[in-house]
Amino acid sequence: MRFLITGIGGFAGPHLARALLDAGHTVHGVVRRRGSMRALEPLHMQFGERFPSGAVITADVLDPRALLGAVAEARPDGVFHLAGVTYVPASETDPLAAHRTNFFGSLNVLRAVGEVRPECRVLFVGSGDAYGAAGNEFSMISEEVPLQPVSPYGVSKAAADLAAFQWHWAGGNVVRARPFNHTGPGQDSRFVCSSFARQVAEIEAGQRPAVLEVGNLDVIRDFTDVEDIVAGYVALWERGEGGEVYNLCSGRAVPIRTVVDELRAQARSAIEIRVTEVRRRPNEVRRLVGTAARAQSKTGWRPARPLAETLARLLGYWRERVRAKV
Amino acid sequence: MRFLITGIGGFAGPHLARALLDAGHTVHGVVRRRGSMRALEPLHMQFGERFPSGAVITADVLDPRALLGAVAEARPDGVFHLAGVTYVPASETDPLAAHRTNFFGSLNVLRAVGEVRPECRVLFVGSGDAYGAAGNEFSMISEEVPLQPVSPYGVSKAAADLAAFQWHWAGGNVVRARPFNHTGPGQDSRFVCSSFARQVAEIEAGQRPAVLEVGNLDVIRDFTDVEDIVAGYVALWERGEGGEVYNLCSGRAVPIRTVVDELRAQARSAIEIRVTEVRRRPNEVRRLVGTAARAQSKTGWRPARPLAETLARLLGYWRERVRAKV
Repeated sequence: MRFLITGIGGFAGPHLARALLDAGHTVHGVVRRRGSMRALEPLHMQFGERFPSGAVITADVLDPRALLGAVAEARPDGVFHLAGVTYVPASETDPLAAHRTNFFGSLNVLRAVGEVRPECRVLFVGSGDAYGAAGNEFSMISEEVPLQPVSPYGVSKAAADLAAFQWHWAGGNVVRARPFNHTGPGQDSRFVCSSFARQVAEIEAGQRPAVLEVGNLDVIRDFTDVEDIVAGYVALWERGEGGEVYNLCSGRAVPIRTVVDELRAQARSAIEIRVTEVRRRPNEVRRLVGTAARAQSKTGWRPARPLAETLARLLGYWRERVRAKV
Repeated sequence: MRFLITGIGGFAGPHLARALLDAGHTVHGVVRRRGSMRALEPLHMQFGERFPSGAVITADVLDPRALLGAVAEARPDGVFHLAGVTYVPASETDPLAAHRTNFFGSLNVLRAVGEVRPECRVLFVGSGDAYGAAGNEFSMISEEVPLQPVSPYGVSKAAADLAAFQWHWAGGNVVRARPFNHTGPGQDSRFVCSSFARQVAEIEAGQRPAVLEVGNLDVIRDFTDVEDIVAGYVALWERGEGGEVYNLCSGRAVPIRTVVDELRAQARSAIEIRVTEVRRRPNEVRRLVGTAARAQSKTGWRPARPLAETLARLLGYWRERVRAKV
């Protein structure tokens, strides 16, 4: 099969590309800036002719014509639409930019597919953040829970998610995923687990004082390994019901404190904790935990990796990055 | 109290303005084009100095600076945000225009209020069309039902609705309304009841053959009188819970056939029916009926006017328009 991944240079993109290449598929990708292609170098090395750098096309999802060209060139049977603004505080600084990229960008991707490859199935990547404040009300969020996004990011993802439903209703072929928090090697260190793991690696290397700076430790999230999430994208693309929406999450309620404790337990040196105000986000929800029962019963998908293992791989990633820099 | 109504020159706008003026409030309004001010002439005549034409400001909701000026000039205690693209087929022809006006336009209104009058409460007008395909699944749509919009219009309203929730969460003061179909004098004849009533009036006046052109008569909708709807806006603005969303609807499941039968019964001459394909909309939902139990229990609001009376007033409006033209 032939697949096109938008945002292939982002966090989940390279993991998904590897999963598809490992399964023998042909993979093309779209990046906004050529700089994002660096994350793909290991894949070009590993897969050689099967995944040359020419398979990655530069196109902004806000540029309909460039998208049409990318879809025409890739001739995909399936599109995984991962491209978007993913960092919540960035959406608070510039909501309109997030709405444009995440909402209008998604519409552009759907339209380009509709024009050039109308039979192609699109896996739309939304977000558990679309539920927002509902997380405080429901101990396990199912797809039936009313959307109450608390950040412009959550609004932009919810809006695109509903647009993807409408696109399917009007004749397109879309399955919608709502991944909750996920982490693993390659994640930007602005995100909570990656921030902590990076700090630990830098502390171990003597590059910073033995103090881990953290935000609100009582916040509860549902973390899944990025490898499990991309396996979920593939499972939904293959076996999800057209138009339907599926949570992808672990169902584990993990206080941020647990992430910190686990990383400290794995650290090679003693580390203190300091709660800093700047790391507390305004208006964030106390709890956001989902159930992926629908995805599990429809596709058999099930997250496999324990959190400690995910954090160990994340910490290993940062140790290597820190070493490489020294 | 001082109120600002965006889209005051649209369908519901003049009805809402009259209700507020009747209650002794000061009303300002925003229109996109000066042409829309014609609908307000009867109000300027009736209320004189209390509602001069200068109380209506020309400003596009897509122009943030003009909106800031309008809010600064009106100094409202409350804003009723009615402006937007309301005709579903227009949103199918040009989805991006609908998204810009209904979604970005709403964000602009909220931001302008936040900057100039942060204490001001906004009544956001969404739409029952945000539920879309859910109407086929649920015989009575409550606010808990997952949104499944089937038109770009429904998507744009749902997106703005969620943005309004987020705005409230972040410190604004918003109540959200989801009105279902409503009709009455002043409605554009592209909308189903108004189209039929206009045809009947033109047939009675001998201006067209005695044939009423209709679309799918089996479609079921929930029609409420526009006067009841604007009373609902006021009730929600006054007594709705901040951030919460409320359906405004009658709870009556009315097949379009019933609207046609009622208008034929009221007609002064015999009228045939002809189902024309062009009037059937692609992808429309079979049924869309809501329950307003939440609004009723929170505010005491309750739609009062029977459908036959609403249609009689609508037909009277068109008879007058047809007479005035001859």
